[in-house]
Amino acid sequence: MTRRRPGQSDLTTPRNEKDVVQLQSGLEHGVTLGTPIALLVRNEDQRPHDYSETDLYPRPSHADYTYLEKYGVKASSGGGRSSARETIGRVAAGAIAEKYLKTAYGIEIVAFVTSVGKVQLPPNLSPWTGFQDEEDDTVADVVNADFHELLSSITREIVDKHPTRCPDAPTAERMKQRIIRAKDASDSIGGTVTCVIRGLPAGLGEPVFDKFEALLAHAMLSIPATKGFEIGSGFAGTCIPGSRHNDAFIKRSNGSLGTLSNRSGGIQGGISNAEPVYFRVGFKPPATITQAQSTVRYDGSSGELAARGRHDPCVVPRAVPIVEAMAALVCMDLVMQQHARTGAMSLLPSVTTLPPTMVMPHKNS
Amino acid sequence: MTRRRPGQSDLTTPRNEKDVVQLQSGLEHGVTLGTPIALLVRNEDQRPHDYSETDLYPRPSHADYTYLEKYGVKASSGGGRSSARETIGRVAAGAIAEKYLKTAYGIEIVAFVTSVGKVQLPPNLSPWTGFQDEEDDTVADVVNADFHELLSSITREIVDKHPTRCPDAPTAERMKQRIIRAKDASDSIGGTVTCVIRGLPAGLGEPVFDKFEALLAHAMLSIPATKGFEIGSGFAGTCIPGSRHNDAFIKRSNGSLGTLSNRSGGIQGGISNAEPVYFRVGFKPPATITQAQSTVRYDGSSGELAARGRHDPCVVPRAVPIVEAMAALVCMDLVMQQHARTGAMSLLPSVTTLPPTMVMPHKNS
Amino acid sequence: MTRRRPGQSDLTTPRNEKDVVQLQSGLEHGVTLGTPIALLVRNEDQRPHDYSETDLYPRPSHADYTYLEKYGVKASSGGGRSSARETIGRVAAGAIAEKYLKTAYGIEIVAFVTSVGKVQLPPNLSPWTGFQDEEDDTVADVVNADFHELLSSITREIVDKHPTRCPDAPTAERMKQRIIRAKDASDSIGGTVTCVIRGLPAGLGEPVFDKFEALLAHAMLSIPATKGFEIGSGFAGTCIPGSRHNDAFIKRSNGSLGTLSNRSGGIQGGISNAEPVYFRVGFKPPATITQAQSTVRYDGSSGELAARGRHDPCVVPRAVPIVEAMAALVCMDLVMQQHARTGAMSLLPSVTTLPPTMVMPHKNS
Amino acid sequence: MTRRRPGQSDLTTPRNEKDVVQLQSGLEHGVTLGTPIALLVRNEDQRPHDYSETDLYPRPSHADYTYLEKYGVKASSGGGRSSARETIGRVAAGAIAEKYLKTAYGIEIVAFVTSVGKVQLPPNLSPWTGFQDEEDDTVADVVNADFHELLSSITREIVDKHPTRCPDAPTAERMKQRIIRAKDASDSIGGTVTCVIRGLPAGLGEPVFDKFEALLAHAMLSIPATKGFEIGSGFAGTCIPGSRHNDAFIKRSNGSLGTLSNRSGGIQGGISNAEPVYFRVGFKPPATITQAQSTVRYDGSSGELAARGRHDPCVVPRAVPIVEAMAALVCMDLVMQQHARTGAMSLLPSVTTLPPTMVMPHKNS
Repeated sequence: MTRRRPGQSDLTTPRNEKDVVQLQSGLEHGVTLGTPIALLVRNEDQRPHDYSETDLYPRPSHADYTYLEKYGVKASSGGGRSSARETIGRVAAGAIAEKYLKTAYGIEIVAFVTSVGKVQLPPNLSPWTGFQDEEDDTVADVVNADFHELLSSITREIVDKHPTRCPDAPTAERMKQRIIRAKDASDSIGGTVTCVIRGLPAGLGEPVFDKFEALLAHAMLSIPATKGFEIGSGFAGTCIPGSRHNDAFIKRSNGSLGTLSNRSGGIQGGISNAEPVYFRVGFKPPATITQAQSTVRYDGSSGELAARGRHDPCVVPRAVPIVEAMAALVCMDLVMQQHARTGAMSLLPSVTTLPPTMVMPHKNS
Repeated sequence: MTRRRPGQSDLTTPRNEKDVVQLQSGLEHGVTLGTPIALLVRNEDQRPHDYSETDLYPRPSHADYTYLEKYGVKASSGGGRSSARETIGRVAAGAIAEKYLKTAYGIEIVAFVTSVGKVQLPPNLSPWTGFQDEEDDTVADVVNADFHELLSSITREIVDKHPTRCPDAPTAERMKQRIIRAKDASDSIGGTVTCVIRGLPAGLGEPVFDKFEALLAHAMLSIPATKGFEIGSGFAGTCIPGSRHNDAFIKRSNGSLGTLSNRSGGIQGGISNAEPVYFRVGFKPPATITQAQSTVRYDGSSGELAARGRHDPCVVPRAVPIVEAMAALVCMDLVMQQHARTGAMSLLPSVTTLPPTMVMPHKNS
Repeated sequence: MTRRRPGQSDLTTPRNEKDVVQLQSGLEHGVTLGTPIALLVRNEDQRPHDYSETDLYPRPSHADYTYLEKYGVKASSGGGRSSARETIGRVAAGAIAEKYLKTAYGIEIVAFVTSVGKVQLPPNLSPWTGFQDEEDDTVADVVNADFHELLSSITREIVDKHPTRCPDAPTAERMKQRIIRAKDASDSIGGTVTCVIRGLPAGLGEPVFDKFEALLAHAMLSIPATKGFEIGSGFAGTCIPGSRHNDAFIKRSNGSLGTLSNRSGGIQGGISNAEPVYFRVGFKPPATITQAQSTVRYDGSSGELAARGRHDPCVVPRAVPIVEAMAALVCMDLVMQQHARTGAMSLLPSVTTLPPTMVMPHKNS
Repeated sequence: MTRRRPGQSDLTTPRNEKDVVQLQSGLEHGVTLGTPIALLVRNEDQRPHDYSETDLYPRPSHADYTYLEKYGVKASSGGGRSSARETIGRVAAGAIAEKYLKTAYGIEIVAFVTSVGKVQLPPNLSPWTGFQDEEDDTVADVVNADFHELLSSITREIVDKHPTRCPDAPTAERMKQRIIRAKDASDSIGGTVTCVIRGLPAGLGEPVFDKFEALLAHAMLSIPATKGFEIGSGFAGTCIPGSRHNDAFIKRSNGSLGTLSNRSGGIQGGISNAEPVYFRVGFKPPATITQAQSTVRYDGSSGELAARGRHDPCVVPRAVPIVEAMAALVCMDLVMQQHARTGAMSLLPSVTTLPPTMVMPHKNS
């Protein structure tokens, strides 16, 4: 929660939202009761008068107009449910899911900033770039050793060392300058967040409609300001031939199968294969900027609108814990779905005389 | 259905699947009864012996291994539910949704191929490229006039003129050559499909978790072989400042508000704003290739696997109707959700004496 | 809410729960914003020490034991989610649904007490009794004129005239005496509540699994202490031949079809037919009694348990608004489901040349 | 399936529906693949001309009128989805659930006929009767020793010995005569089915809205022709004081807690307590009778309608496997929900230093 809230550094909005969580139900003596856990966070630093122009103007690229069209009325106090403030509930719920996933399975989820505007991690750490410029197919591997190493070793502590939440110090510094430039120009800038999920068991994800990557995409695109989602090799992976894109199987030292590369992003056929799951999420530049914009009022007359509220010039540093939280909630849902099927499996009589196709040879090796 | 099935041209798999649909229930005399419509399509051209190596090998970047891990057994006949053949059900259901959306609302859904490997539409028709090379922010608009014109005018007839389903003839021809090159090399190649939804009313999409773009992302990433999803300006939109990204409002000739540009992709705050919704989907190169690949068997021993089945070197031309179908199903769900709320709204007493904020001025203009 | 809360009369628990509702979100200036309405009701009169025996004893016919078995831990303060106090949320949500149903459709929902112990309404007002004693099938009609008249005319004002919420004054007085007898004996007694829903349009309810009566049964049996549910003629209806049970159709003065009798309870094939829907719900005697009961402790040792808390000797008077609220929520769900399908129906081209079977003759009459 | 189908004895409809099940997917070599199991049963003995009067008449107490009101069109061939024929899918799915429940947990589900019209099991085997006549509260126990013994020992083999599916031979014979009398009178008669679920673990069922009994009530009232549902002591239980209704806890020989009586019907607070779950379902007399009934046509004109189809004079014998199947599906859902929560519970660190209230003493005894 602390990692999400505003006012963390001079790169974020100065709104002072303490975000104190009140536990309303579901716990006693620090132990969950099995019943729903209700958390209440009150907004202690509201300044509704900051939003008075919005009585006249639908803010460009905001939800004012679409909420009015959908519901026929609009709240007088800011964006209501379209405010990114709603993500506090995601982070609170995600924290509980993360604790379970970590304790029960050792699953770790770490997100970090991969780009701010055009400032991005160097190509060896950013597998989705570099492909665009090449004329031939003999390109470097989409997912190289450096990137694999980064996915394996990155921790939240490393990520939090720099206020941009970019783990590469020189890039982080350039990102910071880019954000300050946007702020000084009364403008804003977008960016991308990459997330890795380590320690997942194989078998999570449901065929056809609820593939693992489909649920991740749903979850990520439900975060305010997101514009894109890529799993594994992503859009860059569309540019290379199958012979180079396929992940060959190898035998791990523990006897189980793994893959030599991981362009699949840890998911094959919608189901986890026990390799790290990683994906990237794109965030647009925040729509609220303090410079004047030409637009029209609700009544159709032209005018200029300049925001007076306190707003982030770039959301990606604060988006990191939100991405992690949503990833945790997706994993939790899939773990529960898998439990639902396998709960009493060990009580069933074991399969004995099946034809070769249906035998599970790698389990016996 | 005919647009999806294999064997359409020499660019696709020669499997001869006639895909005859049997209507099992829900219709009489060509009129739906309101009851569920059951459609049955039998696979008339199965050749299970094509898949016999898979008794020994988990196919790289396929679902063989993950299904075995998830369920403990595996089907002897091909990929089962992980086969792209399941998409026939999506196309059949989507056709019904499309008919309703078109008849009741005039909604039109058209998808087309935007890239095959690195062969892509020229920058004026492909707003997601071009940004990568620029050093400064003074770039051409993400969504320019030519692209807007393409979104407004493209039809399925135009798309189907070329077997690649790319609407720009010179690019289509280069794409065709790229696919043939992959085929000749016993290899495969990926690509992207872009889809536009025109004629949507404002107000579709639900706040927070079921935003319009979140449901689209879920639907698209559930299609086999997809690796990425972008809405509106997408990842390219993360690179430009908010002052250039925001969509200013304008007054339309019919009195309603519209937006001057459409980088939002027709969705703001998760809810449609009546501008065209457009998005792009990335497809990886098909995993099944006829050249030999080094990998290991289920028992961990090394070997070489070469596919014998009949497979597409590139799926994007056939993916076009699948993308359209899934888009139609998402729209249908959202239309029904909106109906659920607004059905008897006109019977309610009208709002009269509300404070200015809650008045709906543009409705009165 | 006021009708549900404790302390209404000397027939109910003396717990003083003011049940003040805090509106947390979803409204401004008395108008709903279309967004979720969050209501918070704090328990101002907790006395957790009343429950201290429950550290040692699972209370007979309570949820202590089953919650412990399910979750492995138990709350220290009363029944937690198994407390009937949770029904306050149902009543609050039901009030909102009722307002919509009344305003948009004129739907009215009224429940009343039909029995306390063996004290019940006279047979002409209680169609479910009387059948049991008869040897032949030539019984009085299950649903007679008096009962029909009662269903048509009863209002909440009439129901609330007597603290038992039984609309027949002499029976109400006998019920009151029965409750006082239970209270004086440090005991408790059960009863039944009947509910009528008037003004429903035809067509609500979904075929097969979500029939109207199935959803009502689900909703009613989810209320604490309920033991049975009957729709229309109910269990008594199982005793008479079809020739006497069937509801013949008649032509109403407004031209539409109605039924002469209403043993179906306003629902045929799971779908409302615009006649009044009525059903009966059975409530067991409250498990918490202040006389000593022989039982065993969690550790298996024998003992005697006597409740010290403040408890209702009979719940049915206070259950009346809960039954109404749950009925309203079921109706609201079904109205929304129907809206989802029919929302834009009028925009569709009308059916023209169908065979006779599929014509809708009564619409043209 | 064989137990449900028509034509089993001269008590049921002579329609010859062989009900051959085609397995379409989900199995190979008799082993489930984890993927959905599709079953197809074709209706081989349709005679749509039997239903021609229904072009003119809405059949009384049938779904013709309500389906027409709901959908605006009606199927030309019988009742469509409102036909009890749809229950074949329930029985097929229930059979798979039953197999799992039996194999994994030893859960047994047996239903039997408890009444046909007013012919019912003797009071010692039918706990829901007898209460109605008593003036005082000193009645025999609702659930007596004989009934408990019946619930413990009854099997499907015993039930199937008589075509009425009533386990008490003299009563069964009287029931048979009652059904024959209805048949000879071109009439029909209702009845009740009681079902017991043995071997359930404690902890199944969800608090508040998805209580075990609520899901059972939903499932049972979704079966065509059902009019009522009672759990445990049911409506009779509303007539006795709490001191007599409560189920005192006892210590079982295996060390766990049980209850001395079982008026709760194996469920407390919506959650199973490991005692047998039992409930009763009321079925109305079939609406289709071959004697003439006065009613009106769709156009409002009066007339007489006599059914020509082949119909059951009493559905309860054939309803027995349907009740069992729906009970199995409810149990299966709840088992999966419980698995979802408890799947990896054993991997979590054990609770150590909790206050006395939260300790689980009976587990340590």
